[in-house]
Amino acid sequence: MIYRYVYGDPINTDAVVQQINPEDNASMPYFKQTIKEDEVVFRYEMNEETIVYGLGEQMRGINKRGFSYVSYAADDPVHTENRHSLYGAHNFMIVSGEDSFGLFVDNPGKVTFDIGDTNINLIEVTTGKDSDIYIIKGDNLKDIVRQFRVLIGQSYAAPRWAFGYQQSRWGYKCEDDIREVVDGYHKNQIPLDAVYLDIDYMKDYKDFTVDSERFPDFEGFINEMKEEHVHLVPIIDAGVKIEKDYPVYEEGVEKGYFCKDEDGNDFVAAVWPGKVHFPDVLNSKSRAWFGEKYRCLIEQGIDGFWNDMNEPAIFYSEKRLNEAMEEIAQMKDTELDINSFFHVKDIIGDLSNSLSDYKAIYHDMDGKKVCHNDVHNLFGFNMTRAAGEAFDKIAPDNRILLFSRSSYIGMHRYGGIWTGDNSSWWSHLLLSIQQMPSLNMCGIIYTGSDIGGFGCDVTEDLLMRWIEFGMFTPLMRNHSAIGTREQEVYKFSRIEDFKNLIRIRYRLVPYLYSEFMKCVLDNDMYFKPLAFDFPEDEFSKTVEDQLMVGDSIMIAPVYTQNAKGRYVYLPEDMLMVKMKSPEEYTCEPVTKGHHYISVDLNELVIFVRKDHILPLACIDDNLESMDDVDFDNVEWLGYVENEASYAYYKDDGQTKEYTEKENWDIVRKTKDMFEGGYIVK
Amino acid sequence: MIYRYVYGDPINTDAVVQQINPEDNASMPYFKQTIKEDEVVFRYEMNEETIVYGLGEQMRGINKRGFSYVSYAADDPVHTENRHSLYGAHNFMIVSGEDSFGLFVDNPGKVTFDIGDTNINLIEVTTGKDSDIYIIKGDNLKDIVRQFRVLIGQSYAAPRWAFGYQQSRWGYKCEDDIREVVDGYHKNQIPLDAVYLDIDYMKDYKDFTVDSERFPDFEGFINEMKEEHVHLVPIIDAGVKIEKDYPVYEEGVEKGYFCKDEDGNDFVAAVWPGKVHFPDVLNSKSRAWFGEKYRCLIEQGIDGFWNDMNEPAIFYSEKRLNEAMEEIAQMKDTELDINSFFHVKDIIGDLSNSLSDYKAIYHDMDGKKVCHNDVHNLFGFNMTRAAGEAFDKIAPDNRILLFSRSSYIGMHRYGGIWTGDNSSWWSHLLLSIQQMPSLNMCGIIYTGSDIGGFGCDVTEDLLMRWIEFGMFTPLMRNHSAIGTREQEVYKFSRIEDFKNLIRIRYRLVPYLYSEFMKCVLDNDMYFKPLAFDFPEDEFSKTVEDQLMVGDSIMIAPVYTQNAKGRYVYLPEDMLMVKMKSPEEYTCEPVTKGHHYISVDLNELVIFVRKDHILPLACIDDNLESMDDVDFDNVEWLGYVENEASYAYYKDDGQTKEYTEKENWDIVRKTKDMFEGGYIVK
Repeated sequence: MIYRYVYGDPINTDAVVQQINPEDNASMPYFKQTIKEDEVVFRYEMNEETIVYGLGEQMRGINKRGFSYVSYAADDPVHTENRHSLYGAHNFMIVSGEDSFGLFVDNPGKVTFDIGDTNINLIEVTTGKDSDIYIIKGDNLKDIVRQFRVLIGQSYAAPRWAFGYQQSRWGYKCEDDIREVVDGYHKNQIPLDAVYLDIDYMKDYKDFTVDSERFPDFEGFINEMKEEHVHLVPIIDAGVKIEKDYPVYEEGVEKGYFCKDEDGNDFVAAVWPGKVHFPDVLNSKSRAWFGEKYRCLIEQGIDGFWNDMNEPAIFYSEKRLNEAMEEIAQMKDTELDINSFFHVKDIIGDLSNSLSDYKAIYHDMDGKKVCHNDVHNLFGFNMTRAAGEAFDKIAPDNRILLFSRSSYIGMHRYGGIWTGDNSSWWSHLLLSIQQMPSLNMCGIIYTGSDIGGFGCDVTEDLLMRWIEFGMFTPLMRNHSAIGTREQEVYKFSRIEDFKNLIRIRYRLVPYLYSEFMKCVLDNDMYFKPLAFDFPEDEFSKTVEDQLMVGDSIMIAPVYTQNAKGRYVYLPEDMLMVKMKSPEEYTCEPVTKGHHYISVDLNELVIFVRKDHILPLACIDDNLESMDDVDFDNVEWLGYVENEASYAYYKDDGQTKEYTEKENWDIVRKTKDMFEGGYIVK
Repeated sequence: MIYRYVYGDPINTDAVVQQINPEDNASMPYFKQTIKEDEVVFRYEMNEETIVYGLGEQMRGINKRGFSYVSYAADDPVHTENRHSLYGAHNFMIVSGEDSFGLFVDNPGKVTFDIGDTNINLIEVTTGKDSDIYIIKGDNLKDIVRQFRVLIGQSYAAPRWAFGYQQSRWGYKCEDDIREVVDGYHKNQIPLDAVYLDIDYMKDYKDFTVDSERFPDFEGFINEMKEEHVHLVPIIDAGVKIEKDYPVYEEGVEKGYFCKDEDGNDFVAAVWPGKVHFPDVLNSKSRAWFGEKYRCLIEQGIDGFWNDMNEPAIFYSEKRLNEAMEEIAQMKDTELDINSFFHVKDIIGDLSNSLSDYKAIYHDMDGKKVCHNDVHNLFGFNMTRAAGEAFDKIAPDNRILLFSRSSYIGMHRYGGIWTGDNSSWWSHLLLSIQQMPSLNMCGIIYTGSDIGGFGCDVTEDLLMRWIEFGMFTPLMRNHSAIGTREQEVYKFSRIEDFKNLIRIRYRLVPYLYSEFMKCVLDNDMYFKPLAFDFPEDEFSKTVEDQLMVGDSIMIAPVYTQNAKGRYVYLPEDMLMVKMKSPEEYTCEPVTKGHHYISVDLNELVIFVRKDHILPLACIDDNLESMDDVDFDNVEWLGYVENEASYAYYKDDGQTKEYTEKENWDIVRKTKDMFEGGYIVK
């Protein structure tokens, strides 16, 4: 059951798709409420056993206890343990313990979740005075998630090709750079489905333009890549460059489609293109206009996009930079001391992504003037919604790949996310493992982290271990920043190992895609903490580094450097499958309980649940892309003691009109079918 | 055997105390050498099984493979995985595998150790063209360490009181702040041996001054604290404030004791006091002069110091700040764009700890003008040596507590280190576990990390888990930064648990102090990786989160949030002792192999080796400080299947003239003495 409580006069965020009648606020269970002038505080007393799940894209573990999380979308590339905000705002959490319930705080401004940080046993949620609060009671954790997901509507389904291996780097500048990457993969017989275009493909970072010197025949190049079965995925940034005769700018100014400052002038920020205006995507007309701009690229053959810098990131605003420079210039003539030094540092440091700027931006929410700070977390959502809504008109029959950096719950209906500018840190490999189930709870299913890490120099072993996890994320993209060590797998020494691991992804893809689509259609989770599937198993509740992937398997990735293996907990007897290539594998039943498992650097390990099966593609050395995967003639990997059945979802991977049950083959396998092995036709 | 190879004309760093005759460089084993114009590169090909130990205070694991380490002392408070330099430069490493040997690069400038970072199987050590290189061959890992330690001389021995629990915070400003801390501990019956004075005790951050408003009778206050059995430990910073009539400044200028710029003027940097000069501690006269300055505080009753900011940290130099401000002022009148913004950011960001400044500082090394950049890593060493050498004159009979932030091998003879400005991160708890054995190899035995973390807000659980590890480090100090959550243990909810854990430290201290002194006297390690004690045990080589502490015990700290326990590997049968207080414990033999061990948040676990014993203090609720510990009447904890003997080192904890064997009681216990228990008189 879902209970709604309305405080003040909440802004309609479009996060939810169901209309729930509000209850009396005083009747809210679980929480003690304190209503202040500007905010409402909800307090819940935990006991030692209470676990808190959720909050989507955030730092820390699967169990969110012991830290404070601030929903206020931030462009901050240094994801250390103490960061309170990342790029998204996903205000859904589940308390599991003596009481078990879900909480969704539908407020698009700043919301704080102190989960036993200040006080070890206290949850303190602080939100704006105008908030929609939902409490969800359910039979179990999965039921609570399912009810919430019905409330917020069906998740975005990516096209099937986007389950192939994808390569990206901020630094590919021209056609030849991309040809070189594709050649690098093909020459080494490593499959590849997409190459990303980061900001350098544009003419002077202008959205919806292509630099004609670097890409003299963009449409021709797109087609050339299509013949190689490689999709090109361009980036779209939030800021529209201020430049005379640039049509998007001219049109936006003329129609009044940009965000304003307090005086009603178009707000001037600076990001990659230099000075920009932000499209007011919270206004339905402006949103429709901005979304329509994607058409020019789609008509040239583009079928995937990533929306970036849409927190929105602001390097500086024109106004505040001028003020800062003025202040520094005046200080020059005074006696400079240590205080002046720190002051200058602060002035410069405070210019980017500043609250002052966010408070100086205004939206026209279909007639209502709203300060950006109050709806900050809706920007990335609505930029991506602009694209998603437009795609329904531009390409009504086709799924287009779309994911975003910033997001709010609701955006999951229009696209996925990637987890932003992580680093080539082992701790970020673990973080990405822990983020996945939290994101899934919030409806974000098409997602993944930058494999190998975006910032800093990756090492060969970190990249390999990351691929061994990333091969399970729907978005499997290797991405890195300009200036860091080159990260394409064929640039390292153990190319054959990388090739074999990436080929295993394609062997698994019938299962991964089937599970993904079922989760979308059934409002289920693709990645689950162990406790969601084994609620009676006490130890499962403490496991922070293993995940259930779909219904049939558990994974336990290695995420520490120089490790030769790791400890794994099995909540039931399972079949351990170790693979060094699609062809080279061993299977061994392992009993419920604790085990140390050796895992070579080039080895993938999965654990198949008892009486479960999963479909595997039959692939050969010629496999180049998803186009070579035959979803109809699959093999079945299984650990069948009695019998197993599997609902195998298949569609053409491209049509938008997927239906809920039609495409599901129910496959049954009995023990005798597996005589002498674990993989059968 | 130790082999020395001399390249060019090395600066005498005084790192080593033995004179080794050089070999022919061409005969150097293991490495391929490349001699370039400015540097020498040594390459060694690892195989998959090679482990690399050492490098002292650095990031990453016990096994240093998979990263590049740069010895160039850095004041950088954000210790993320990708940091190549911390505060110290400890150029000793051990390769363990097909070949096993030690390497010490005695060069006080920048030295780089690429340990399979760029190329997964290659070690590449790059040092300046003038370098002393030592290769150490030994029977086993411990033997290699012992030979190296003999080469570099006996480690500093701290006074015994410095093994008590110590409280610090950047933020204690006056007598009453400190009284409040002492009261907080005493009221809660939590023992305490020292409180630290961070920079605010000084008058305007001037070394060797005390702010007389905040401390109107400093000597009286020191005595008042002594009556409470609390030692006060003031900080001394590297920079001497430029201020007319400040005697240290006036005298240093007059005598020419400060570091110079290229033109021979005293170099002007800015740190906490504002503009400062740096004492030229690489000059023996200047060093003697600076060391003598500690006398004024010692004569007032101070018996411990920590030397800080001695990389040396430079917030900015006068010259470069003026240049920067000028450049920014000029930009103001141009068209500001995104490039100007990034340029201003870079200008300001590059001001601190800048290579340009380090290259502009000059030392007078007893007649030889040396550019600071070439001897950068010697500064902290020699500042601490200044103090240590002076202490021998000022207090020839008494051990004075002394430790430093920056260090180089050689400094270990004069003082310890703390591991600098870490953060309240769980990953830093693990880091501190991994740093300890690496530091010990380099001779640094009196050491510890800031318990609870210096930067960021600690949570109660992190502080408690950290204390459970920190109780084994010789320096057991809780320290935190101004502006962070208050970190004194009695400010949290589970005071009784903190009290019990800290009291366990005092129960263990006869063993810890005995092991510490034996390591100092025998050139042994206090913290060892498991593989050092169990070289035949293959799995031990991979264990990164357990340590041997002295001869009798192994520890396996919990370092992840919300964990209810952890996996532990036992290289042999051991006795697991769980303690929630000195009085409340359980003992259980556990067999060799892998185990999951539950460890409550308020629980300490140690593993006693078979046929080993250790002395425990008999303490009661009245215990307030080390002064209350009776080292003569101890109990013995043991896991004796046959018999065990223990060399129990005892001295008065204060006299400098400790001798090697005289103070060792050999205690023997046989199985029958433990009838019915594990702790006996």
